[in-house]
Amino acid sequence: MKEVIDEVEQWLSLGHTVALATVVNTLGSSPREVGAVMAVNDAGEVLGSVSGGCVEAAVVEEALIVIESGEPRLVSYGVSDELGLSVGLTCGGTIQIFIQQFSDKLHSSNLSLRDIFQAIRQSLQTPIAICTVVEGMQAGAKMIVNEKGDRLGSLGNAEIDNMVADDAQGLLQQGLTKLSDYGLNEQCRQAEIKVFVESFAPPPHLMIFGAIDFTRSLSVLAKVLGYQVTVCDARDSFATVARFPAADEVIVEWPHKYLENAHVDHRTMIVVLTHDPKFDVPALVSAVRTPAAYIGAMGSRRTTRDRIARLQEAGLTEAEINRISAPIGLDIGARTSEETAVSIMAEVIALRSGRSGERLSHNQKPIHAR
Amino acid sequence: MKEVIDEVEQWLSLGHTVALATVVNTLGSSPREVGAVMAVNDAGEVLGSVSGGCVEAAVVEEALIVIESGEPRLVSYGVSDELGLSVGLTCGGTIQIFIQQFSDKLHSSNLSLRDIFQAIRQSLQTPIAICTVVEGMQAGAKMIVNEKGDRLGSLGNAEIDNMVADDAQGLLQQGLTKLSDYGLNEQCRQAEIKVFVESFAPPPHLMIFGAIDFTRSLSVLAKVLGYQVTVCDARDSFATVARFPAADEVIVEWPHKYLENAHVDHRTMIVVLTHDPKFDVPALVSAVRTPAAYIGAMGSRRTTRDRIARLQEAGLTEAEINRISAPIGLDIGARTSEETAVSIMAEVIALRSGRSGERLSHNQKPIHAR
Repeated sequence: MKEVIDEVEQWLSLGHTVALATVVNTLGSSPREVGAVMAVNDAGEVLGSVSGGCVEAAVVEEALIVIESGEPRLVSYGVSDELGLSVGLTCGGTIQIFIQQFSDKLHSSNLSLRDIFQAIRQSLQTPIAICTVVEGMQAGAKMIVNEKGDRLGSLGNAEIDNMVADDAQGLLQQGLTKLSDYGLNEQCRQAEIKVFVESFAPPPHLMIFGAIDFTRSLSVLAKVLGYQVTVCDARDSFATVARFPAADEVIVEWPHKYLENAHVDHRTMIVVLTHDPKFDVPALVSAVRTPAAYIGAMGSRRTTRDRIARLQEAGLTEAEINRISAPIGLDIGARTSEETAVSIMAEVIALRSGRSGERLSHNQKPIHAR
Repeated sequence: MKEVIDEVEQWLSLGHTVALATVVNTLGSSPREVGAVMAVNDAGEVLGSVSGGCVEAAVVEEALIVIESGEPRLVSYGVSDELGLSVGLTCGGTIQIFIQQFSDKLHSSNLSLRDIFQAIRQSLQTPIAICTVVEGMQAGAKMIVNEKGDRLGSLGNAEIDNMVADDAQGLLQQGLTKLSDYGLNEQCRQAEIKVFVESFAPPPHLMIFGAIDFTRSLSVLAKVLGYQVTVCDARDSFATVARFPAADEVIVEWPHKYLENAHVDHRTMIVVLTHDPKFDVPALVSAVRTPAAYIGAMGSRRTTRDRIARLQEAGLTEAEINRISAPIGLDIGARTSEETAVSIMAEVIALRSGRSGERLSHNQKPIHAR
C-alpha cells in the first residue's frame, strides 16, 4: 500500500472517492505478490497493479461497484495459462483480491484513514501490521498492531482482536504478510472469518557465519520463517550461491569484517556455525558489540568451553559472553542438519518470547505470549 | 542400489568384476535423484542409469578405469542446458557420482559385499543406512548403521565412525540419503572427508488431520525434514491439493475412517490440528490404538481439558490419553503457523530422542543422543 498513499491522499483531498484493491492470497503461480495494490478513484483513474494485466480491467470494474455501494468485496480470479507463460511461469494460478472503499472514516472500525496513513509513514521507525477483516462479519474493519502488541482500532470482536493481534505481532516480527482464518470460541482457524495481516517492516535478518553443511538446511528453514538470509564465510570455495540457493545473499568475507559495515539492529539474528576459533572468535567479539536480538554459536561442550576462554582473553565481559547462546539451539537431540536447523530456529523463537522450550503438555503455562 | 543387487550378484558369481556408480550429490536441476545407481562390469555391460543419458557414456568409461585400477573415484559432471530442457527442466545443474569397484572384499572396510547385500535385502524389516567415504582418506570404506545405532564395519577412524553413525541414525529415521562433510578433532563439518549416507528405509510418515491454516506450514516444514506427508480432512472444500501443494497426498475422509485402512507403524507421526471435537475425538481414539511414534493434538489449555474429558467418556485409559502430546509442541511462544510448525516438529524430534527441549546453553547434558 505504501507506494500509493501519497496519490490516494491527494485524490481524497480533491474530493474523490477511492477504492483500494489488494492481493491478499495467491494459489499456484501468480504474477504479483501478496500485498500488491491498485487504487481506483470514482473518475476511473488507476494507480498500481494487482496482476500482470489480464484481470486489471475486471478489478477496476469491481472497484467502481465498491465505490458506488460502499461495501467491500473479496473476489477471486484465475490467472490464465497464457498469462502465466507470458510472464515466464509454466502454469496458471488463482489470486484473491480484497477491494475496499477508502474514505476518511473507515467501515466498522475505530480507525480513521489518517491513523493508517500515519502509521504506514512511520513504519520504518515503528514497524506495524495492519489487520483487515476481508471475509465474514465486519468485513473492512481494521486494526493496527505494533511489535510490542499495542493496538489501534478493532475488528469488531474482543476475542478475535486478541487472537489476531497475537498472530500479527508474530507475523510482524518476521516481516510477513498473510491471509488467515479465524473463528470464535477458541475453535479458531475454522474459517469463520478471514483476516489479512500486512506487515510494514523489513523482514528480520539472519546472518549465518560459516558456509558449512548445516548452513544449507538453516537457510532453507529461515526462508520458510520469513527471514532475509545472508551466508558469509571467508573461504570462497565454500561460500557459493550454488551451495546455498535459498539464501538471499552469499558473501565471501571474514565475518568480523562483514559486521564492520553491515546494518545490525534489534531484528538481526547472528548465528556462528564454523566452530573454528580463527573465524568464530573475531566474529563473536564483533557480534556482541551490536544490538543483535540473538547471537548463537555452534560447537560441542568442549569447543564451547575453549571458546569462552578465548573470548575472555579477547576482553569480552561475562555479560557479553552470556549474550551468546552456546551450544546453540534447544535440547531436542537434533542429529541431521535439518533437525539442527529446527533446534536453532526454535531457540530463536523461544528467546524472543522468553519461553523455556519444554513440552507444552508438561507445563500449565499459557500457550501464547501475551 | 536395491534395484541392481540381484544382477550384480549374478555378474560376480560368473567371475566378472563390477563397478557401481552412485549419484551422491546434485546441484541445481538434475535428471536423476541422489542414490540413483548404474552398475558396469568388466565386459562393458551396463545396468541402471545415473543421468538422462548425456553423461552415461562418460560414466561407463570412468567405471572401466575404476575396475582396472581398483581405486574408487568421485567425479562431477555438468548437465547441459540442452539435456535440462529435454527432460523438462529450464536450466542445467551438476551431479557428483561416486564410482567404486565391487568385489567380495570391500576396500578399507571390515565388511564383505555379502553383509551389505544381506542388510539391503532385510531393510524392509530392519531399516539400515550404508555410509561410504567418497572423498578423503579411506575412500570406499563402508559402515552399516541401523535405527538403534548398532554398526557393522568402519570408515577407518573411530571418531569419524562415531560422528557419522550418529548422523546416519538421524538420517535413517527420516529416510534421507545425503552427502556430508566431516573433519577430525571435533571441528567436524570442515570438509576433510566426504561421506555418503544412503538410507534403505521408507521415509517416516506424517499424517496431519485437519486441513487448516497451520497445516500448510507444517507440511512444508515436514517435507524439509524428509517426511512423507498426508493431509486428511472430511471437508472437501478445505482438503484440496491447491491449499497444500507440499503434501504428498491430500485425502478427503474422516480421519478415524482413514486410520482404519492406513498403514501405521513405529515410523508414523499423527498430528491432529482441527481442535473440533467431532473430528478430533474419533481421530485420537483411533490413533492411540496404533503403534504410532507420536500423537499430538492442537488446542488451547481449555480445549485440551475438555478433550481429555471426552476421551475419557469414549473409554480411553489414562495411559492412552498420556500418549497424546496436548497442547501440541514445545513451549517456544510460537505465534504464526510457521513458528507453530517449528514448535511441533521440534517436539517430534525431542520426543524421539528423549530430550527436554530446554536451551542447550542452560544445561550441561550431552548435545547428541548416543
